[in-house]
Amino acid sequence: MNRKRLVAIFIGLTLPLLGNADEPFTKVLTSQSKNIRTEEWHRDHRNHPLETDDKWSVRKTVLHGGKQEGVEIIEVDNGRLRFSVIPTRGMSIYEVVMGDIRLGWESPVKEIVHPNLINLQSRGGLGWLEGFNEWMVRCGLESAGHPGQDKFINNVGDEASMDLTLHGKIGNIPASEVQVIIENEAPHRIRIRGRVDERMFYGPQLELWTEISTEIGSESLTIADELTNRGGSEQEFQIIYHGNFGPDLLEEGSQLVAPIKSVSPFNEHAAKSIGTHTSYGPPTQGFIEQVYCIRPWADSQGNTRAMIHNAAADRGVSLSYALSELPFLTQWKNSADLKSGYVTGIEPGTGFPYNRRVERHYGRVPKLQPNQSRRFKLEFTILDSESKVTAEKAKIRFIANGRQTTVKSTPEADLSLFN
Amino acid sequence: MNRKRLVAIFIGLTLPLLGNADEPFTKVLTSQSKNIRTEEWHRDHRNHPLETDDKWSVRKTVLHGGKQEGVEIIEVDNGRLRFSVIPTRGMSIYEVVMGDIRLGWESPVKEIVHPNLINLQSRGGLGWLEGFNEWMVRCGLESAGHPGQDKFINNVGDEASMDLTLHGKIGNIPASEVQVIIENEAPHRIRIRGRVDERMFYGPQLELWTEISTEIGSESLTIADELTNRGGSEQEFQIIYHGNFGPDLLEEGSQLVAPIKSVSPFNEHAAKSIGTHTSYGPPTQGFIEQVYCIRPWADSQGNTRAMIHNAAADRGVSLSYALSELPFLTQWKNSADLKSGYVTGIEPGTGFPYNRRVERHYGRVPKLQPNQSRRFKLEFTILDSESKVTAEKAKIRFIANGRQTTVKSTPEADLSLFN
Amino acid sequence: MNRKRLVAIFIGLTLPLLGNADEPFTKVLTSQSKNIRTEEWHRDHRNHPLETDDKWSVRKTVLHGGKQEGVEIIEVDNGRLRFSVIPTRGMSIYEVVMGDIRLGWESPVKEIVHPNLINLQSRGGLGWLEGFNEWMVRCGLESAGHPGQDKFINNVGDEASMDLTLHGKIGNIPASEVQVIIENEAPHRIRIRGRVDERMFYGPQLELWTEISTEIGSESLTIADELTNRGGSEQEFQIIYHGNFGPDLLEEGSQLVAPIKSVSPFNEHAAKSIGTHTSYGPPTQGFIEQVYCIRPWADSQGNTRAMIHNAAADRGVSLSYALSELPFLTQWKNSADLKSGYVTGIEPGTGFPYNRRVERHYGRVPKLQPNQSRRFKLEFTILDSESKVTAEKAKIRFIANGRQTTVKSTPEADLSLFN
Repeated sequence: MNRKRLVAIFIGLTLPLLGNADEPFTKVLTSQSKNIRTEEWHRDHRNHPLETDDKWSVRKTVLHGGKQEGVEIIEVDNGRLRFSVIPTRGMSIYEVVMGDIRLGWESPVKEIVHPNLINLQSRGGLGWLEGFNEWMVRCGLESAGHPGQDKFINNVGDEASMDLTLHGKIGNIPASEVQVIIENEAPHRIRIRGRVDERMFYGPQLELWTEISTEIGSESLTIADELTNRGGSEQEFQIIYHGNFGPDLLEEGSQLVAPIKSVSPFNEHAAKSIGTHTSYGPPTQGFIEQVYCIRPWADSQGNTRAMIHNAAADRGVSLSYALSELPFLTQWKNSADLKSGYVTGIEPGTGFPYNRRVERHYGRVPKLQPNQSRRFKLEFTILDSESKVTAEKAKIRFIANGRQTTVKSTPEADLSLFN
Repeated sequence: MNRKRLVAIFIGLTLPLLGNADEPFTKVLTSQSKNIRTEEWHRDHRNHPLETDDKWSVRKTVLHGGKQEGVEIIEVDNGRLRFSVIPTRGMSIYEVVMGDIRLGWESPVKEIVHPNLINLQSRGGLGWLEGFNEWMVRCGLESAGHPGQDKFINNVGDEASMDLTLHGKIGNIPASEVQVIIENEAPHRIRIRGRVDERMFYGPQLELWTEISTEIGSESLTIADELTNRGGSEQEFQIIYHGNFGPDLLEEGSQLVAPIKSVSPFNEHAAKSIGTHTSYGPPTQGFIEQVYCIRPWADSQGNTRAMIHNAAADRGVSLSYALSELPFLTQWKNSADLKSGYVTGIEPGTGFPYNRRVERHYGRVPKLQPNQSRRFKLEFTILDSESKVTAEKAKIRFIANGRQTTVKSTPEADLSLFN
Repeated sequence: MNRKRLVAIFIGLTLPLLGNADEPFTKVLTSQSKNIRTEEWHRDHRNHPLETDDKWSVRKTVLHGGKQEGVEIIEVDNGRLRFSVIPTRGMSIYEVVMGDIRLGWESPVKEIVHPNLINLQSRGGLGWLEGFNEWMVRCGLESAGHPGQDKFINNVGDEASMDLTLHGKIGNIPASEVQVIIENEAPHRIRIRGRVDERMFYGPQLELWTEISTEIGSESLTIADELTNRGGSEQEFQIIYHGNFGPDLLEEGSQLVAPIKSVSPFNEHAAKSIGTHTSYGPPTQGFIEQVYCIRPWADSQGNTRAMIHNAAADRGVSLSYALSELPFLTQWKNSADLKSGYVTGIEPGTGFPYNRRVERHYGRVPKLQPNQSRRFKLEFTILDSESKVTAEKAKIRFIANGRQTTVKSTPEADLSLFN
């Protein structure tokens, strides 16, 4: 037993607030049910010794000034990789940083905007874009995808019309419960858990328990969410994990590597460039977004992977998840100039980002029965060397296993059916 | 003179902050004009002795976490009955509890949602439903009732179109002035008063002084509001007292008892069940709301009453008010499953909940001249025994006085006129 | 060297926080980038001696209660004239007071409403009116003027439709950076500077640095704003300085005096009264607003002036600015009854207040190239004697220099083109 272990035991004995050294440490930062809000809090390797040399920390703060007044932030540093979670914005993840590699992007939106100031219906249903600057924002839950009109059954049992707003509400709902869990047993995973409720009367009662976790010292981050229908009737839902990557990972020559079973363009504009959709060009003024609808191959366990790497193929990020959970992968290419937002989205989802009316027509709007849950787990790993990028390529090639890619030239959806 | 009275006098002499023992005690909790906001405050039988044995209290707190961050709550306990008022949500009343009887309901909306997060125009004008979970919420004031399009005269003198949103704004406007008044003279009424302003330029200037009061030790609660037109021109208004009752008062076999002069269905769907409209069925998955438009009889003083009681007729709540103030009574039956919201609304109003354009056509949108006021007073009493329920039935029978009920089979309004 | 100068030097030496006596003193009150919010702060002639006898002060507070909960206010008193700036509402100026003269008006909106509670899309795009009560509010920046539909290019490169809301967003965006600057060198100008960002993804990236300043002891106030396009593409913008004047400056017999090159009515209603547009009538119930579109003459340096004075011509306010910066002057006459808002707007702008689609058609929607800036400077002086009003009349007459006014009888814009 080394000295650190002794110190840990000593502290475990003398500071009962640490709990049993083998039990996870849990701190409730926000709780609607317990009426808790925490302005400032931190825990780190100094006030919570663990059997590790990594200088980890978890820090809760509140942002001030302008449109970010009152926004809560949790910053996690596992000693090797750090990331920031935004409870106030639906447990979105603002950025992930490891050394000089950053997952995130430079949006024209410079503040972490409080949902109080967002009107999702603004600008023809594009109000979501007034707060869009996170590395990872979930789209959903009652609806995701583009704005549009859709039908629903209203309180008097009549069919009524509603305006679907871009990417739904979940990214602008403050979390009702937020916890930090630190596992005292190796390998010491730090978990940030938050419950985000999309509930209304005569509407969906969707509960999303989000978890963003990392092991101390690791180069990976795991999102593990559980979505439950708390209503009394079956309920449609949509979820897209809108992960966004800008410079330096994104540059002229960057590549998307994925085991692609088929790919089709989102619209005629994207169709023109589908032959080179996995390659990225430089920042380009006036660039119009290109969106591609990908169905990946999975391995024998049903898992799939994807990677974005830079031009030199010596820096990248990999993503792995179960295809059954998120069958559809959207690639959003927005190679605009740096000020407008030079960014690509790699977005596993339960569907593609057409509006719900279109998605429903094509059978991509799943339902949950009362009390039924679905889980979504995604693991992201930062790759900081040529050898790691090369190894990831091999894993992806292994999944494809020689199976071919079907490239379609016509848009995934025939929007003329919906006029 | 007993010992308590002596103590009261002693304290009255030595603690001048209590004021004259015969003068009411007044505490300003919120004031826009005096720039006051109170985070925490309480007053009770210990720090404010009164000539009573009841363990009464008034407590002001602020809620935290999720969508309720910053919502102000005032909890009043008169020693026998307690209730909670929400200044931040237009002085709505969240619940009333006496022993094991609760006025309120289990909405799918679990938090007391801050108006900052409500967009009334969401979902085709149904955004109000994202915060709807109170026992009593006022609907109005410029408009109440269902969403729809209506005309108004805009700033340039032209007829313009506006989207009426469900049940208007007043339930999502924070009170500008909030006071607690404790009457030092028996029977010691505790009054929670709040001013809610629905004002805009080129629009209504309606001021609502709300008062929710109870006598210490009593089984009753009184709402006494005064609505004033502070504008320079005559002003339409609508107000509906949307009182909502769920389990345990509501169950299979619960009854609405009222001196009904006439009843008509809100729509064709409700028409099918009008024969049994006063009886409630069990929670039923997929139940579509049934709404009935009731005109009550009044007694010789112009007062009317209504009661909801449970299946055993040994628990209930009665309501009494002046029919001239609130001539129309809406019964909203929503016998949905428990998760979706098993609830009935008993809703005295200046009209029925059709949208304002329809209500105006049928002559149910009153007007206020400049500086004119109208008062609305409703008294609710919790009935916790069979004898009290029986006595209330007798009072209601006395009002009807043998006069007959007209049951109409066609909907109250002909909506085909408004297409 | 007098005693005050000695004191100033002494304090300069002993209180280094005052900085070099010749350097301006700077205090950051709000900063999104530095995560600063200041609840209370003040600085005045007592804790910051300057070489002046004027009892000046700058005070920062936060408002509480009702719809103004959390609104930040900065009150500046230069010893002779005082004004209040609202960082939370886009650096609008609530009022200016000198002796018994007040620039401002009595709006039906009685609170300084937090933008969190404003829905600009409410009431057919007139939600802006729910917070409108300032002396000076800027309209813009992506759009200003009346509500209406306009086209824009959306994320997929398609032409889409958006609802323009009355007078745009900038008046309801909290400032992201707020500073107080006090010049230690005579003539001791106090500057309140604030950065208001109107930014979104796939939309405008307009940055407005506002500055409201006054010299200690002076009777003037200067607005000096700089608008910059931080986006990567050229960007349309509109700005109108919506200055509003009510009693006592406005009364029956008040006059607008300006060097008018041409004036046309906004609509047929205003056309009827164009012959007397510079004269004001008494408060009148049911008055419908009259709007006039003015093109002023400028002097040889390109500057123009305007004045509002009372009936006795012994109190007034003058305004001077560069015509090239703000070529169009809107006169808004709203001689309604006192409760509805008896007020006139004198509004220099880059266009008239038709909606953007109309303004674009008539060539009044300017553009900014990436990184391009435009400055807008307006100086207001309060005139508290007949001689000052007379002197201002002479200055305005000097600008007109005998040149004639063209009075048009048909509305400035032909709205029939836009149906």
